[in-house]
Amino acid sequence: MALIVQKYGGTSVGSTDRIRNVARRVAKWRAAGHDVIVVPSAMSGETNRLIALAKELQASPDARELDVVASTGEQVTVGLLAMALMAEGVKARSYTGWQVRVLTDSAFTKARIVDIDEARLRADLAAGFVPVVAGFQGIDTIGNITTLGRGGSDTSAVALAAALKADECLIFTDVDGVYTTDPRIVPEARRLATITFEEMLEMASLGSKVLQIRSVEFAGKYKVRLRVLSSLTDPEIPVDTEARSGTLITFEEDDNMEQAVISGIAFARDEAKLTVMGVPDRPGIAYAILGPIGDANIDVDMIIQNASTDGLTDFSFTVPRGDYQKALEILDVVQKHIGARALVGDNRICKVSMVGVGMRTHAGIASKMFRTLSEEGINIQMISTSEIKISVVVDEKYMELAVRVLHRAFDLEVAPA
Amino acid sequence: MALIVQKYGGTSVGSTDRIRNVARRVAKWRAAGHDVIVVPSAMSGETNRLIALAKELQASPDARELDVVASTGEQVTVGLLAMALMAEGVKARSYTGWQVRVLTDSAFTKARIVDIDEARLRADLAAGFVPVVAGFQGIDTIGNITTLGRGGSDTSAVALAAALKADECLIFTDVDGVYTTDPRIVPEARRLATITFEEMLEMASLGSKVLQIRSVEFAGKYKVRLRVLSSLTDPEIPVDTEARSGTLITFEEDDNMEQAVISGIAFARDEAKLTVMGVPDRPGIAYAILGPIGDANIDVDMIIQNASTDGLTDFSFTVPRGDYQKALEILDVVQKHIGARALVGDNRICKVSMVGVGMRTHAGIASKMFRTLSEEGINIQMISTSEIKISVVVDEKYMELAVRVLHRAFDLEVAPA
Repeated sequence: MALIVQKYGGTSVGSTDRIRNVARRVAKWRAAGHDVIVVPSAMSGETNRLIALAKELQASPDARELDVVASTGEQVTVGLLAMALMAEGVKARSYTGWQVRVLTDSAFTKARIVDIDEARLRADLAAGFVPVVAGFQGIDTIGNITTLGRGGSDTSAVALAAALKADECLIFTDVDGVYTTDPRIVPEARRLATITFEEMLEMASLGSKVLQIRSVEFAGKYKVRLRVLSSLTDPEIPVDTEARSGTLITFEEDDNMEQAVISGIAFARDEAKLTVMGVPDRPGIAYAILGPIGDANIDVDMIIQNASTDGLTDFSFTVPRGDYQKALEILDVVQKHIGARALVGDNRICKVSMVGVGMRTHAGIASKMFRTLSEEGINIQMISTSEIKISVVVDEKYMELAVRVLHRAFDLEVAPA
Repeated sequence: MALIVQKYGGTSVGSTDRIRNVARRVAKWRAAGHDVIVVPSAMSGETNRLIALAKELQASPDARELDVVASTGEQVTVGLLAMALMAEGVKARSYTGWQVRVLTDSAFTKARIVDIDEARLRADLAAGFVPVVAGFQGIDTIGNITTLGRGGSDTSAVALAAALKADECLIFTDVDGVYTTDPRIVPEARRLATITFEEMLEMASLGSKVLQIRSVEFAGKYKVRLRVLSSLTDPEIPVDTEARSGTLITFEEDDNMEQAVISGIAFARDEAKLTVMGVPDRPGIAYAILGPIGDANIDVDMIIQNASTDGLTDFSFTVPRGDYQKALEILDVVQKHIGARALVGDNRICKVSMVGVGMRTHAGIASKMFRTLSEEGINIQMISTSEIKISVVVDEKYMELAVRVLHRAFDLEVAPA
């Protein structure tokens, strides 16, 4: 007798047959006595189709209008899923973001949830209904439709789970959990039974695309138990079995946790590196370089400033590869302005990161990582560390090799005792 | 310097190219100094696609959920059209039905507009924006999404024009006006420069599908000048020319009106006739027959009860052809219950109607109509008249012939002096 929020991704609702499967799965959970709120994404491909239409009309579509258009994908799915549930004999009612209502700020295409009014959903649950709530969307204080950005339905589900103090939030997707690394690169990659929020944040932000990072932050902040599991299994699998499948993302390092030092290896290929060489080493120089980059809405990831020699230093940072040309153009102006010697860039790099809360208490992880890479002749171009991760930038041609040798060196294919 | 509401049908916004054409047309009206509110339908085919998805999941889709799904078609179009207008340099902002808000009753899939809150639209107009308002949809008092039924965008446009006291409501569609009859049947059919609301109501309800009938009622009730015109002309046609094109639907028989006796000939093929024979002629018998038909939500059109002979009478009426079998089954029970002699039906009939306000003051129209049909050997099965129309039911195989000979007999191909 628990309250469960279930989120289904675009692939899981990609056809009417799959929507019917979702309905059967939800009906099974209802039959087992649980209260369920369902949050579906748009049917796979639909959001891209809508954005493509928008771009045919406006090269850079107006953000408010883009949200009006893009939010229809989820609206269609909630209506269809409510019908499918009724066809399975389950009482159901759909809600758009504004109907719930999911209040957000007004940052169109990347809005943040501010508040959720759960009154109607509670009333529905009390009356035996399954509320089917559109993910990805909300409404701002003056009644504009907003969307939460790519993967925003994860955040919608977690936010609803937090608002309603749900017992667990199940993220049904087309993978069966979080792996030590991408199994397409390392076939021995192992599914993790549990992972901490901190680790998941590092894994997500570093390129493991299982969950939208903001949903993980939200879950950590509001202590929502989050489970990632597959929607491609037989919908009739027993509830007890399904409830223990996938990967549980926990908000504490409890006794049941696996005791591995390293949980996984993440990687990101779509990065580029820029270096301003011979920069006069004086106060404010970092801002002089990164200020214009930030003004152009380019996200900067790793930043490295070397020790000064003769009052000159080299300043390096990484940006998304799609912003590389724009960043180069900006720095070309900046370089002259600050009197730096040269500007070099490389958009053929990648980032490989080892993540694990065990690093906190285990020394020697970094040196073992660097030794493993050097034994394969892989040159490390940049290094960045946090309490629970070590990231290195290497030539992108070495990415798969680096992930494989690190996975083996740290025995990640073996479940910890 | 007028306020113009412009409605564009599904064909007119059926592709991004056509949406761009609509934007150019609106930009031209703005450049000529007019305030414009635009009401687009869903892209052609979209509503049918959504309804088909719904029917895959629920044989008879839940009406509330169907409205949630179907209303997305117009939501997509308003966003896209607002973008297209911005791309033309026109300030624009989209609104869904609930954003305006268009308040309706809760009769899902066929809701009626109760009220429109025009405050935001007025503010937008004052600030130089073109509001782009989703047709076909509204919101009920408890926040459910509703739709107005097929062709509902016409009604949305007229209701907005009424609420904002617009100078004219232009219905852009894929025909260039209202014709004396369907030109596919009578090539000489002539476009009417004007038609009265009463005539248009009879034409619309009798099968001329240019405008949703409810929109015409609305326009008549609130004295909205309504013009039907083509969206397939060159968007750059001068505003002055465009403003005089199409057919103007007037709410008074003013001096500028054409002085024809008959304005047009309408027809409806999808009808069926039922006759209960040898009905005991006593009070309440009509209700005993038609009550169960109405309870089954079958619309009855023409009703005829013959004079009684020996206390028995024959009772005939017409229903939509799709309801024919259901009506027969109901009458089979009724017949035994009331002790009628027999039940006969015919689903191969059609209705042909002559419409014209001039009938009020001209005698002999009916007899000329009957003579014309008899000269062609067309047998009249039922007759029904109103102040401004005469309808006859004939075998459906004579439909085209009947329309053609009547068109010629009444010289409808010739514009009145």
